[in-house]
Amino acid sequence: MFYFIIDILGTIAFAISGVLVAMDKRLDVFGVLIIAFVTAVGGGTLRDLLIGIKPVGWLNAPMHLMIIVVTVLLAIIFVKQLKYVRKSLFLFDTIGIGLYTMVGIEKGLAADLSPVMCIALGTITACFGGVIRDILCNEIPVIFRKEIYATVCILGGLVYFLLIQFPIENTIAYSMAIVTIIIMRVLAVQFKISLPNIYREIT
Amino acid sequence: MFYFIIDILGTIAFAISGVLVAMDKRLDVFGVLIIAFVTAVGGGTLRDLLIGIKPVGWLNAPMHLMIIVVTVLLAIIFVKQLKYVRKSLFLFDTIGIGLYTMVGIEKGLAADLSPVMCIALGTITACFGGVIRDILCNEIPVIFRKEIYATVCILGGLVYFLLIQFPIENTIAYSMAIVTIIIMRVLAVQFKISLPNIYREIT
Amino acid sequence: MFYFIIDILGTIAFAISGVLVAMDKRLDVFGVLIIAFVTAVGGGTLRDLLIGIKPVGWLNAPMHLMIIVVTVLLAIIFVKQLKYVRKSLFLFDTIGIGLYTMVGIEKGLAADLSPVMCIALGTITACFGGVIRDILCNEIPVIFRKEIYATVCILGGLVYFLLIQFPIENTIAYSMAIVTIIIMRVLAVQFKISLPNIYREIT
Repeated sequence: MFYFIIDILGTIAFAISGVLVAMDKRLDVFGVLIIAFVTAVGGGTLRDLLIGIKPVGWLNAPMHLMIIVVTVLLAIIFVKQLKYVRKSLFLFDTIGIGLYTMVGIEKGLAADLSPVMCIALGTITACFGGVIRDILCNEIPVIFRKEIYATVCILGGLVYFLLIQFPIENTIAYSMAIVTIIIMRVLAVQFKISLPNIYREIT
Repeated sequence: MFYFIIDILGTIAFAISGVLVAMDKRLDVFGVLIIAFVTAVGGGTLRDLLIGIKPVGWLNAPMHLMIIVVTVLLAIIFVKQLKYVRKSLFLFDTIGIGLYTMVGIEKGLAADLSPVMCIALGTITACFGGVIRDILCNEIPVIFRKEIYATVCILGGLVYFLLIQFPIENTIAYSMAIVTIIIMRVLAVQFKISLPNIYREIT
Repeated sequence: MFYFIIDILGTIAFAISGVLVAMDKRLDVFGVLIIAFVTAVGGGTLRDLLIGIKPVGWLNAPMHLMIIVVTVLLAIIFVKQLKYVRKSLFLFDTIGIGLYTMVGIEKGLAADLSPVMCIALGTITACFGGVIRDILCNEIPVIFRKEIYATVCILGGLVYFLLIQFPIENTIAYSMAIVTIIIMRVLAVQFKISLPNIYREIT
């Protein structure tokens, strides 16, 4: 029940981030809807394709589709008010990437993959909806440039696999990994920490 | 037999739309061929991947590959004459999206998916070849910006699922949905109907 | 053992080509790593998805991931020295596309696909890592514009299917196809051979 609520809040936050990028590009209503949808479910879809889960998750999740459609309509109508909920959106988004990272790791474990690959799948689940969003909007994905987003997911995954080495309940390791991701991301944004950019000096 | 001919005409129209976009971008012969191919089969490929049909359709459809190669060569040779067949191409394209929408819906039903998801898959089948074409050519997909293309597919899908509620033969509902899509698209283009663009006014 | 070494050298060369493109775009360390990874494994991943091999290859190839991570770190540190190994990189890259073309053809044959589709899959294996790299970096894929890259893979595939018509050992046909690809690519670059660009003159 708790995870269910987090999933919905995360979906809403991801969809709204899609709406904002799509509006910047002056897309029409259908374009905005697709971008919001892809942002929210793209990461999980890519994960399912890579593992070979069929059909991909959203084809059996009508509720997610409905939530995204309603979110998009509300976001379009109340676009001027969105700035007043910016902090809540950041929080939902952050909780969302925490949860989605762990969902991806779980699916990787269920497919008998190694911890390293599970962490990769968790990161893909949490981050690649945004990557597909940016590609569809003809931008270099923002997480390749500045947002310290994926790094936080990878660290959260490491925390999880560290914790389950100890005699600890799985639910607790799971929750602590999510909390780690949330705290690290809030701190990174608070203190404007980002990965070093690398300039090519070769000629 | 009838559907077979529509399929070929649609494939030709889609391939030529790929050729035109690729030429605008000054690609070489190989690039033009790939863009034409992706425009023609990309939507069905994405649908097969999402449902989990393996291998994806075109790997067992050598005839489609052949038709596309011949179309591309002819389109390159007779590029100056293409403008004289513009209306026929528009017609083939429109008949094509009608058919492909229904093919996608059928595959969704065969995979036991809900009507809403079947309509989504039909729309993907008909429209996402063009989306992949635009992404490969470094453009924001045109159907996200102005062409009222996907909306017509969605409406056609709704008509189909409405009709099969009644004691009507499946072939008739199928054909009427295709006809609906064709008529709506012709009307939309005729009267320059498009979805409202949404400008982001948040700061 | 021999193929194993070629595979590693090819992976390194592909990863470094990703690093260079990503640096040109001023991505951060995570972005550079992802682009390098996608360049190296993207072609094989797309092939596995299209055929329906699950999970996709790299999820069970931790060694490749490790090689790529080490390559990226070394390439970033020694970026100024990269120009001194440019010729070796070109060679590794060329040997790589030769091998990967044949790997793709083999996987196609194992999935009972026709020669034409096997050649398509071989070309995708060798070339589409670079395509995905360019799309993620917001560029029109270079192989659609100038590099005579894919054509060489297609010709190599044809040589293979021609040779196995004769009473010849499979390993020999396999190796000769790879050698053909390498020689043709070296000659093409040496003599600056490229496919004709096609300009759209229709209005």
